[in-house]
Amino acid sequence: MVSQFQITLPNYHRGYHLITGTITKNLPELPEQGILHLMIQHTSAALTINENADPSVRADFEYVFDKLIPENDPNYQHDTEGADDMPAHIKASIIGPSVTIPITNHKLNLGTWQGIYLCEFRNYGGHRNIVGTIVW
Amino acid sequence: MVSQFQITLPNYHRGYHLITGTITKNLPELPEQGILHLMIQHTSAALTINENADPSVRADFEYVFDKLIPENDPNYQHDTEGADDMPAHIKASIIGPSVTIPITNHKLNLGTWQGIYLCEFRNYGGHRNIVGTIVW
Amino acid sequence: MVSQFQITLPNYHRGYHLITGTITKNLPELPEQGILHLMIQHTSAALTINENADPSVRADFEYVFDKLIPENDPNYQHDTEGADDMPAHIKASIIGPSVTIPITNHKLNLGTWQGIYLCEFRNYGGHRNIVGTIVW
Repeated sequence: MVSQFQITLPNYHRGYHLITGTITKNLPELPEQGILHLMIQHTSAALTINENADPSVRADFEYVFDKLIPENDPNYQHDTEGADDMPAHIKASIIGPSVTIPITNHKLNLGTWQGIYLCEFRNYGGHRNIVGTIVW
Repeated sequence: MVSQFQITLPNYHRGYHLITGTITKNLPELPEQGILHLMIQHTSAALTINENADPSVRADFEYVFDKLIPENDPNYQHDTEGADDMPAHIKASIIGPSVTIPITNHKLNLGTWQGIYLCEFRNYGGHRNIVGTIVW
Repeated sequence: MVSQFQITLPNYHRGYHLITGTITKNLPELPEQGILHLMIQHTSAALTINENADPSVRADFEYVFDKLIPENDPNYQHDTEGADDMPAHIKASIIGPSVTIPITNHKLNLGTWQGIYLCEFRNYGGHRNIVGTIVW
């Protein structure tokens, strides 16, 4: 069995944002057991799962990934869409466009400290679409 | 319901290659809704989803990942299979061996700018096998 | 059809560990075709698929990721849980908390050289829980 839905996220500023609540609010009724697959339909944003408590973790994500993949490298060929664009594509593939989460007892079976992050790599990324698929 | 298939890619030179067309040409008929999982059966190549339009994005991928994980680091212990080998293993786990894509209305539901990349990290990787699984 | 199970791994020391055998020993009977999804319920450990033969590959993983995301960077804000903590969160999202593997002929359909790695990023991570979901 499969059910599918779409979530359009409001505009988020550049950074790492906890969206577990937004996702769960938009879920249809979940099966007893199965998986939830979420894919963001963009190439300069990503989804991941990480620490859901201390906001400084998400601030450090911004610091570390900006240090690893700096803007304004003169060797970039793809540089016409802004200094944040090419690094955003790289970060998007390092983190990845999708997460898959087990469903158990009609709920997402995340660990105690796990939350879903929207990783917004553009300064002005606009709204972002997520396609959700539940399989059971 | 599950259906499975295998795609053997022709030899690609080292780099990042758009293979969306190759994949869709080799797909069986897709269900109305579901997911497509693709896994590459190798440890020095990877699959990702990224920008499908400007080839300079893919050239910059090569530049950035080679800078992040350089060849010929004298600290590598695993160095007998060529200078490109150990960096290839690292890149393979950073990007990952598989992608999962929603299927909607009998088609892959990628975003407008999303395409499937083969990331070939070896100078002479040979042919690469992908196992595809459709679940609905 | 869906079946689900949990595996609690024994304590592993920091590093990259081949757990293919541990996983397969704990699997229920597999369907003829399908997918296996494994997710680790933690934010400072990860799962990946990589080279299953030469232990020096796994040693080099430790070297490279520690070089990319060093400890004790004075710019980290999240630094109260130990020098290994914030780098562990970053590594966890670079590699990712889950793997999905095709099942073919009642077996995991990994490539010849592919094995499942537990990536333990903490010095003393304790036991780790993995939720497994088989869909077919």
